Amino acid sequence: MISFESDYNNGCHEAILKRLMETNGERATGYGLDDYCTAAKEKIRMACNKPEADVFFLVGGTQTNATVIDALLDSYQGVLSVETGHINVHESGAIEFGGHKVLALPSHDGKMDAGELREWLEAFYDDIAYEHMVFPGMVYITFATEMGTIYTFEELQAISDICKRYKLPLFIDGARLGYGLMAEGCDVTLPQLADLCDVFYLGGTKCGAYCGEAVVFPHHNAPAHFFTIVKQHGALLAKGRLLGIQFDTLMTDGLFFKIARHAVEQAMRLRAAFISKGYKMYSDSPTNQQFVLLDKATIALLEKDFVFEQWFPVGDLMNCRFVTSWATRLEDVDALIAALPKLS
Amino acid sequence: MISFESDYNNGCHEAILKRLMETNGERATGYGLDDYCTAAKEKIRMACNKPEADVFFLVGGTQTNATVIDALLDSYQGVLSVETGHINVHESGAIEFGGHKVLALPSHDGKMDAGELREWLEAFYDDIAYEHMVFPGMVYITFATEMGTIYTFEELQAISDICKRYKLPLFIDGARLGYGLMAEGCDVTLPQLADLCDVFYLGGTKCGAYCGEAVVFPHHNAPAHFFTIVKQHGALLAKGRLLGIQFDTLMTDGLFFKIARHAVEQAMRLRAAFISKGYKMYSDSPTNQQFVLLDKATIALLEKDFVFEQWFPVGDLMNCRFVTSWATRLEDVDALIAALPKLS
Amino acid sequence: MISFESDYNNGCHEAILKRLMETNGERATGYGLDDYCTAAKEKIRMACNKPEADVFFLVGGTQTNATVIDALLDSYQGVLSVETGHINVHESGAIEFGGHKVLALPSHDGKMDAGELREWLEAFYDDIAYEHMVFPGMVYITFATEMGTIYTFEELQAISDICKRYKLPLFIDGARLGYGLMAEGCDVTLPQLADLCDVFYLGGTKCGAYCGEAVVFPHHNAPAHFFTIVKQHGALLAKGRLLGIQFDTLMTDGLFFKIARHAVEQAMRLRAAFISKGYKMYSDSPTNQQFVLLDKATIALLEKDFVFEQWFPVGDLMNCRFVTSWATRLEDVDALIAALPKLS
Amino acid sequence: MISFESDYNNGCHEAILKRLMETNGERATGYGLDDYCTAAKEKIRMACNKPEADVFFLVGGTQTNATVIDALLDSYQGVLSVETGHINVHESGAIEFGGHKVLALPSHDGKMDAGELREWLEAFYDDIAYEHMVFPGMVYITFATEMGTIYTFEELQAISDICKRYKLPLFIDGARLGYGLMAEGCDVTLPQLADLCDVFYLGGTKCGAYCGEAVVFPHHNAPAHFFTIVKQHGALLAKGRLLGIQFDTLMTDGLFFKIARHAVEQAMRLRAAFISKGYKMYSDSPTNQQFVLLDKATIALLEKDFVFEQWFPVGDLMNCRFVTSWATRLEDVDALIAALPKLS
Repeated sequence: MISFESDYNNGCHEAILKRLMETNGERATGYGLDDYCTAAKEKIRMACNKPEADVFFLVGGTQTNATVIDALLDSYQGVLSVETGHINVHESGAIEFGGHKVLALPSHDGKMDAGELREWLEAFYDDIAYEHMVFPGMVYITFATEMGTIYTFEELQAISDICKRYKLPLFIDGARLGYGLMAEGCDVTLPQLADLCDVFYLGGTKCGAYCGEAVVFPHHNAPAHFFTIVKQHGALLAKGRLLGIQFDTLMTDGLFFKIARHAVEQAMRLRAAFISKGYKMYSDSPTNQQFVLLDKATIALLEKDFVFEQWFPVGDLMNCRFVTSWATRLEDVDALIAALPKLS
Repeated sequence: MISFESDYNNGCHEAILKRLMETNGERATGYGLDDYCTAAKEKIRMACNKPEADVFFLVGGTQTNATVIDALLDSYQGVLSVETGHINVHESGAIEFGGHKVLALPSHDGKMDAGELREWLEAFYDDIAYEHMVFPGMVYITFATEMGTIYTFEELQAISDICKRYKLPLFIDGARLGYGLMAEGCDVTLPQLADLCDVFYLGGTKCGAYCGEAVVFPHHNAPAHFFTIVKQHGALLAKGRLLGIQFDTLMTDGLFFKIARHAVEQAMRLRAAFISKGYKMYSDSPTNQQFVLLDKATIALLEKDFVFEQWFPVGDLMNCRFVTSWATRLEDVDALIAALPKLS
Repeated sequence: MISFESDYNNGCHEAILKRLMETNGERATGYGLDDYCTAAKEKIRMACNKPEADVFFLVGGTQTNATVIDALLDSYQGVLSVETGHINVHESGAIEFGGHKVLALPSHDGKMDAGELREWLEAFYDDIAYEHMVFPGMVYITFATEMGTIYTFEELQAISDICKRYKLPLFIDGARLGYGLMAEGCDVTLPQLADLCDVFYLGGTKCGAYCGEAVVFPHHNAPAHFFTIVKQHGALLAKGRLLGIQFDTLMTDGLFFKIARHAVEQAMRLRAAFISKGYKMYSDSPTNQQFVLLDKATIALLEKDFVFEQWFPVGDLMNCRFVTSWATRLEDVDALIAALPKLS
Repeated sequence: MISFESDYNNGCHEAILKRLMETNGERATGYGLDDYCTAAKEKIRMACNKPEADVFFLVGGTQTNATVIDALLDSYQGVLSVETGHINVHESGAIEFGGHKVLALPSHDGKMDAGELREWLEAFYDDIAYEHMVFPGMVYITFATEMGTIYTFEELQAISDICKRYKLPLFIDGARLGYGLMAEGCDVTLPQLADLCDVFYLGGTKCGAYCGEAVVFPHHNAPAHFFTIVKQHGALLAKGRLLGIQFDTLMTDGLFFKIARHAVEQAMRLRAAFISKGYKMYSDSPTNQQFVLLDKATIALLEKDFVFEQWFPVGDLMNCRFVTSWATRLEDVDALIAALPKLS
């Protein structure tokens, strides 16, 4: 079976395994106070062009979202997200567990519209009863989104401008940031993204690492005692070097971005094949997640040799997700393309 | 520098690294639904002699404690622990973050006294105002304790009996369970421990793994939807196979227990040397953590070549902690013993 | 100024003040353990035709909603409500503060549609990722709704049936239950309502009392230690007799229902006048809240002598709320009708 | 039966009932935005000699403690209190429900020792692992304490000084503030108390009102959106005028203090009688709560005609609590004194 099930169905990049072996005999202080974490943080700061940034390593995405959001919000505030945002759908209520409401805006293929955000905020403060409501306390977006889409620089700037006007921190969930920045046609750079937001993370789990998300407060603006907040959330890894070594490796010589670009290229080959063979894409994704509408017979045929997810029905068809990753091989994509029947 | 700083200052057992390399090219479903997790769970069930046990893999100790405690307690209940219990001191309030009070009992070198537990419970229900108080909802103990001590079978049974009488689940924090079970003079077996409690965990982080704690509900008694509760706590690892592979390796041919025994043996050598050279131990620990009272001159001398923690002053002396682990080498201990001056 | 601003802009029914005076010199045990509470509970049980019901007195609506919902939900569950439900909009995130998500369904003039509820539940359990989502744990509806509407018996039964099928407790927020049951055309009786749900409350604050909500678990099905949960939520009144005396008075000789009926009658007179003078109602409310679309000139005219709320614009008009209560006088309504210009 | 059971076993002061009757026909905006609340707040500011103070009215004590503490603490902080503090014992875990640990110091007849507070704080910041612990975020004391004792001005100032040094807000639970300030030998005035702390409340429930606690931030230092935080905690009374009218009455012509003084005088008569008849007091309370050690025979004798609480055994005797209040009549105390046998 060849798996396009997800971008966390693989192990880790071999360069990481190599480093783990080389360093295994060493002794190091725990909790991220080791030299590997220090080196990795410095490389991330350089990649962001933010020498003063605060960087922390956490283990997974849901954990990172909950920790950052709880750290930034006051108790009476909620977080603005599109309806399809990961925190609003697939985190088992981790945000509410921390006491906060997710204030949902419409999703446009996974993206938030700056104009709708502005209108929501205007309407909130116009409401005679707003003091009886949950205050907006921050804005959460994903890059790339859950639907594989990305924001243009202009779109990101527009959202950032509104956040600044309303003094709302902007948080970018970067679980798939590598695939977003390396996407076909992406006009946003990592330093620009760091400029426009108040906090974001570089997702390692889905892009080369076994686990790990690097949280960046680009403007030396980490909340007081964020270390303790991370610990309180059960997100502080005792052997922090496991995260440090992984990110140090990924951030060396641009490995993180190279392997992300590879995944995107494979996804683009797949998309081109779907389209050329007459299939309709559910969304126009320039990243490593491709959504295509398949009929039952095609699904049955492909399921013999390939693993992929069926998300939800669209009319008589099914919206199916095919995900590439840094670990996807050229021959995997070739095989899928070859197996794909041409629609008459 | 030779480090006795902690039992999480090392990498992972080489057998694990080997397995990670061998399996790195494979594809597997995420979230612990892979074959390695399945195999590891089965081996754990066998080691516990509990074929019906429910087993889950989480990443770290604080996270595991918070998730298990939140899952077992009702909102109006708290958890009984000794004052020095990890959840009461060193988890940055993770239990309170989940809404629960830690109800503190006296600590006897880190251990709970069954008689004091019974008296506490009797006093609680005798109190005219108990409905205005936090109800006891479970009992939490550590094995080995934070002070390196362990419970005898009889002591454990006495606590278990009281828990049963008051219908309180008994939760054993096993972050150092390997070192506890393999301790000098330990008369408790893993199946006995599994019999006597309602939930415990096998700590991988401190005993051979890079990360990972295996939560065991021995009596097929996991709370409904514990998977979702784990996810909500940010404790569900996307690439669950990382945990599965580690525990599968550790539970093969008793590796976990062998390497724990090694650590205990090195600690016993260290203890014997401290005592024979005239030092006073702070506590009588049969496990991998040794607490010894040192004067400033000796500390200064040892700090040149060795890393260890100074916990707190005891009169003019300092209570210092030396920790061995599965990774401690014979020559490390030899060097420390050689460097240790004889007290006149 | 004559106020139609709300149904909590008044004092309390004079019969209650009389009882407070008569009983003021007495001594009574606190926390609701007094004879007045006992008597009031018994009268509520009789009115519901549920001799075995568990009854508790809390102070206000938001507090009651949060306490009941927290008591019934497990940590990984959320509460289903229509988007316009009070808990989803106007409680400052009290439900999320307790750790739970409000799962929002479409609102039909404030009402939940049984078919949409069933479809939501079917879709939830059909979702391949539902274990990563917030589980539905209960259903919350309001009677009368925030838009003044009420459910028919058939509608209520349909919702109740689905709840039973999915083992979801049904909670009816009765902050305006008196006005709902006494509404024009209501075909639901209090005993029927008690039959169909798992918990509801009789709102005193908006119907005759100074404060107080009577929570009823009709089937002797209060959660264990609900008293303590109430205390934990800061909802236990020390001088519980204040609530007991008020409800005992309101439940004597049907006073509660008589005064609610009075309010509805005044609202119906108002509605008839609006319609006969050519105004368009925003919703078709048979209860004490009337929503009418007014132009700016009419608003300016009426504001000279009357207090009412402007909710939100509808095209060029404004949706305005006029609320009657047990304390609304015939002459207040007469005056408003007289002041209302006829639309040409 | 004559009741010394508590200071909330009575109704409300007749002057309040009179005002409730006089104002009952009026209409007023809800949520504390009415003229009575405005007037009451102004009178409280004057009594505190703090014209710039922020004042809020809440309903009960546990609710007030939880709301204030949650509003002032960051998520990683706990509240320092003596072990016997109300929040640590008798609030069913309301503080932990809000996510915060109560950090317990020794109790000296209910009082915190400034020296011990300083030592605790020094030890905390000296601890090598303090970033893994719950940070101290505020100091909570009660005045009068649960044991009837009060702080001297000097003691209060010493605690306040330490709080300032460590930038910890000082919160004074004033559920019994009236009885504390009017206590025998009290050398603290209300303006002094307001000067020395960051927030406190004037307890109405136990001193003349049916319900209500007036929270005072003396230095115009209420947290942002405290109104919304109150609402979120279910502590915002819809008919806020009920609280406004009560406090406006109590704060007129010093009524609150006069009736508190009356209660203290009756308690002093009782204490003198206990002592002169040979009984041993459990604590030396100058306020309205008296703790006396009685034997079983005396308890049995007194229980025939009097209600009082038996707190806990002290050797063969029982520590019994007798509470006076603003509503205690001279003849009630006379009767108890008369019934009290002289110890041989």
